[in-house]
Amino acid sequence: MKQVALGIDIGGTNTSIGVVDREGNVLYDKKPQLPTPQKKDNPSGSEIKSEELMLSFIAALTLEIKAAIETVMKINPHIEVVGIGIGAPNGNYYSGTIEHAPNLPFVGVINFAQRIQDEFPHIKHVKLTNDANAAALGELIYGGGKGMKNFVMITLGTGLGSGIIVNGDLVYGADGFAGEVGHTTIVPGGRLCGCGGIGHLEAYCSATGIKRTVYELLAKYNNGESELALVPYNDMTSKIVFDAAEKGDAIAKEVFEVSGELLGRGLADTVHHLSPEAIFLFGGPIAAGEYIFKPTKDSMERHLLPIFRNKVKILPSELREGSAAIIGASALVWKELEKKNE
Amino acid sequence: MKQVALGIDIGGTNTSIGVVDREGNVLYDKKPQLPTPQKKDNPSGSEIKSEELMLSFIAALTLEIKAAIETVMKINPHIEVVGIGIGAPNGNYYSGTIEHAPNLPFVGVINFAQRIQDEFPHIKHVKLTNDANAAALGELIYGGGKGMKNFVMITLGTGLGSGIIVNGDLVYGADGFAGEVGHTTIVPGGRLCGCGGIGHLEAYCSATGIKRTVYELLAKYNNGESELALVPYNDMTSKIVFDAAEKGDAIAKEVFEVSGELLGRGLADTVHHLSPEAIFLFGGPIAAGEYIFKPTKDSMERHLLPIFRNKVKILPSELREGSAAIIGASALVWKELEKKNE
Repeated sequence: MKQVALGIDIGGTNTSIGVVDREGNVLYDKKPQLPTPQKKDNPSGSEIKSEELMLSFIAALTLEIKAAIETVMKINPHIEVVGIGIGAPNGNYYSGTIEHAPNLPFVGVINFAQRIQDEFPHIKHVKLTNDANAAALGELIYGGGKGMKNFVMITLGTGLGSGIIVNGDLVYGADGFAGEVGHTTIVPGGRLCGCGGIGHLEAYCSATGIKRTVYELLAKYNNGESELALVPYNDMTSKIVFDAAEKGDAIAKEVFEVSGELLGRGLADTVHHLSPEAIFLFGGPIAAGEYIFKPTKDSMERHLLPIFRNKVKILPSELREGSAAIIGASALVWKELEKKNE
Repeated sequence: MKQVALGIDIGGTNTSIGVVDREGNVLYDKKPQLPTPQKKDNPSGSEIKSEELMLSFIAALTLEIKAAIETVMKINPHIEVVGIGIGAPNGNYYSGTIEHAPNLPFVGVINFAQRIQDEFPHIKHVKLTNDANAAALGELIYGGGKGMKNFVMITLGTGLGSGIIVNGDLVYGADGFAGEVGHTTIVPGGRLCGCGGIGHLEAYCSATGIKRTVYELLAKYNNGESELALVPYNDMTSKIVFDAAEKGDAIAKEVFEVSGELLGRGLADTVHHLSPEAIFLFGGPIAAGEYIFKPTKDSMERHLLPIFRNKVKILPSELREGSAAIIGASALVWKELEKKNE
């Protein structure tokens, strides 16, 4: 029997569903993805509406999981589904609950993993955590973190997520929610963060944070010569900044320098906590390569105690952008199996 | 046979040596303490001088350890010394080495635990870490952290040390040096830290940092009415500030408010990494009670993501100031025994 795991990632817009084997091969990846219920469908935060949306979401997800298993079994009938791993916003590993997720229409604490388990009682492991924690497990099980005991995963997207590996396992903390490095304060009195906080790392060094820096620098220098000045705020991406930097655009290059300076300082704070072997960066901005890696490394080293210098690698994630979400979620299952076998 | 552990703490001035049982009772505590070799005895950083000082220090320590064991055995001959735990600056748990300790006269990497082990080949466990990590283990084995799986220990002294407990064990990181929260950046562009860094938590919230804030505020307000204005810089202590606050001194009260505001923000950064159940504070400044605890708690809560609020306790350490160093060091031994029995 070939063992496989289901990986489910509940994103703000869509939910990905895939089947992944122990080596990280994606045997199935549902396209188009299942739409995630939207906050705007429950604008008043009604508990009744929340439950309605949850029931129809669980029903749709159940059908999709069955379809995924059937599709994979048609190709190889000798398959055993050993678990379902779920990445979800504000996902609590210990209880399998989704708690007060600000971008979902569900109210309060949702017993999500249990509801899925109830639909598939014969599947042994149904586990849930947040997407960045799942990505860290993906890096540990399939990626550049294989064989490492201590590393940190940083995901740069709309937000800045993180997952922390200590002694070969994910750090969940006392309540199941550890690893929110994006919400450490990097600039006291600085930018408003999406969470309502002030000056958080996420507000500067996520993909969105980098975009904000573009317009801050355009405003600072009033530089109409930069080709970035031609792009509306809502259309700006890390890719556009990278392309401009490649053509020598001074603003674009400074955007990466400023972002790397702050990210490096933030990573130094993380190293002072955890002394990891490596920090993996994942997400759109890392396609800018040395434009972002060099200032980040330089700043991190400069902010480290001598004892930590020239020890900690900053590496691009080895997870592929397209399938990282389901691969990360599926890694939860393999990690559970490992723990049971210890 | 009653099992006991030796606890040795190598401080900048003196080295403490004690014998502690599994319940944390101190059966022996050498007084006066053994002087620690001083940096000024090897001003040029000579390797030959370093080795000379090390040999005589090991010889003296060996005699003291033997005397400690003999003294305890005189009272109770049915004693088994199961290990020696050592707290040392820049102590590396994995290798048992003291590495490039800036305040000791020893040059480079010193194989300290092995040298002690060589003197006592019949003692099973000789383990070493830094003093704040040892204190965290002390809190775990004997103190308020008993039964907790995830907490952080913060020691407020000349510096600001920290030890991190995750899943019931100390976090040593990839290189054995994790837990240097005092050197995270809290005020970018701020005060010079003892390590040469800028704006570190230690420069604001250690006992020394609190002293610095006294004079910063006296200078800010030019407040000659404050009784703190009568005390020379080198004589100022947290106790003096506390006593002044008790008498209503405005500067003294603001010192604790400012210190707590910054400490609370730093602790929020730590919570965003690790989501601990509790944070224990240890050291002179905590005698100020609510003057320091209240602003620290308020600031931490204000800087936390909603998901972490009203969950994390800030507690005074349950280790007694006088014996915490040897108790912490001895806890290393009991933790080793626990690991072997798992």
